[in-house]
Amino acid sequence: MKKLKRSERLVELTQYLLSRPHSLIPLTTFAERYQSAKSSISEDLAIIKEVFLEEGVGDLQTMAGAAGGVKFLPKAQAADSLAFVESICRELTASDRILPGGYMYMSDILGDPKTVNEIGRIFATLFAEVEADAVMTVETKGIPLAYATAGYLNLPVIIVRRDHSAVEGSAVSINYVSGSAKRMHTMSLGRRALREESRVLIVDDFMRAGGTIQGMKDLLAEFRAQVAGVAVFVEAGDVEEHLVSDYVSLARIHDIDTKSKLASVTPGNYFAAVREMSAAIQGGETP
Amino acid sequence: MKKLKRSERLVELTQYLLSRPHSLIPLTTFAERYQSAKSSISEDLAIIKEVFLEEGVGDLQTMAGAAGGVKFLPKAQAADSLAFVESICRELTASDRILPGGYMYMSDILGDPKTVNEIGRIFATLFAEVEADAVMTVETKGIPLAYATAGYLNLPVIIVRRDHSAVEGSAVSINYVSGSAKRMHTMSLGRRALREESRVLIVDDFMRAGGTIQGMKDLLAEFRAQVAGVAVFVEAGDVEEHLVSDYVSLARIHDIDTKSKLASVTPGNYFAAVREMSAAIQGGETP
Repeated sequence: MKKLKRSERLVELTQYLLSRPHSLIPLTTFAERYQSAKSSISEDLAIIKEVFLEEGVGDLQTMAGAAGGVKFLPKAQAADSLAFVESICRELTASDRILPGGYMYMSDILGDPKTVNEIGRIFATLFAEVEADAVMTVETKGIPLAYATAGYLNLPVIIVRRDHSAVEGSAVSINYVSGSAKRMHTMSLGRRALREESRVLIVDDFMRAGGTIQGMKDLLAEFRAQVAGVAVFVEAGDVEEHLVSDYVSLARIHDIDTKSKLASVTPGNYFAAVREMSAAIQGGETP
Repeated sequence: MKKLKRSERLVELTQYLLSRPHSLIPLTTFAERYQSAKSSISEDLAIIKEVFLEEGVGDLQTMAGAAGGVKFLPKAQAADSLAFVESICRELTASDRILPGGYMYMSDILGDPKTVNEIGRIFATLFAEVEADAVMTVETKGIPLAYATAGYLNLPVIIVRRDHSAVEGSAVSINYVSGSAKRMHTMSLGRRALREESRVLIVDDFMRAGGTIQGMKDLLAEFRAQVAGVAVFVEAGDVEEHLVSDYVSLARIHDIDTKSKLASVTPGNYFAAVREMSAAIQGGETP
């Protein structure tokens, strides 16, 4: 690569870091790439760090020493995230979205890659420090959210199938009970898909009582893997008893009226979780 | 937003453009945002354009006039794309990936968001000018590729379901014949999901004879929508007759040996399509 001027280097560095979240990049990589002194690179990185923090893009962590370098951690600002979620809540509340069975039509919202990416960035903010090995979801609607989250965390995605016709070689299957109908279902995961004892983040689009999430947890236990966190986009709030307690939701549906096809939707428990985390960090505890 | 120095502005502009592909942004937006003269913004954009072209990130198109502005078009360089696809071909060829029925295990490769994003960027390069309204795929494995492509093209994603238990309200269903087994299946799409007469890009992970792709085309016809293009990640090359002729593939599988679980995989017809397109552009034709 030819030697770049500072202005060009700033553009290149910015795009390079943005496309490699949660990856430690040694300063020598940049010094060689741009034929520049490490001190100049450090100055560039200081400028980028400031702009990224100011604009709510994320943080640049610099590690000193021989194994050191710089790592870009995508992080959404809590106020921006809340404003984003509030606008989604308004959209979900406004129009006739309630389908038979009390389900909510969200395919338009989850069909927009910008929205999906922002949800992923918000999840990735909370889970930036949990050191997971993979993000797991069950087909179908959680898949885009899982990829968006995993992309920002630089992790692979594991998709659990609802049947096993789905050509993956040998698989582990479990039964689970889902929905208000309390019907029995099967989900399966290919043997090759997950290393034993991995730490896994579970992501899904919707949670009612939590049967599907509990199913994924049971499946993880079969692989002797750990749950590093659970995040759902929307939860139904009118549930008597949750099967799962330790999760975050971005939004919560109340007061579903199947007659008028309306419901009220408010921000979920994610924001309390973020406040707790920052309080813990400011208090000097590890989050 | 506070007034930024040029160095800060370059970082901010770069991240702003990268996160808004295929969106026309008026220069006044930047001038107000950064409290800078339009002439300074234009100089910044010229620097960014040069670096983006040089690095194979994409192109900045500037439109003059009152309705003008700047648009970032993500574009992968053909040589980079070929190198990327060749490395995937090697990965697919090397290990024991052939599953019963002649299917190929690709979940590890398609489980990596970086790989999926790059495939989406490569598809988006070819389809940068087709002016589609949406990207369509059928569940399950094509979904991440459809979102990646749609993200780079700033388009919504439409997911066709293989059953209709899937809570979407009223839907249109069609039957299609897929696979070497020539079995009859059903796919369905919610009435709300697609506006009539849309132009739609079809994206999928795998194509054998093309029955599933033909099914999506038939479904589009039901919505009086047009096919703007068809792109698949991998096609099986040992097929007597394709049901679909106008498509691009990134890779092609030959000589499947179910005994040794090996196959040979080579780059697909995408690269010929890109060469034709650039020849047409250089020849002054519209692509």
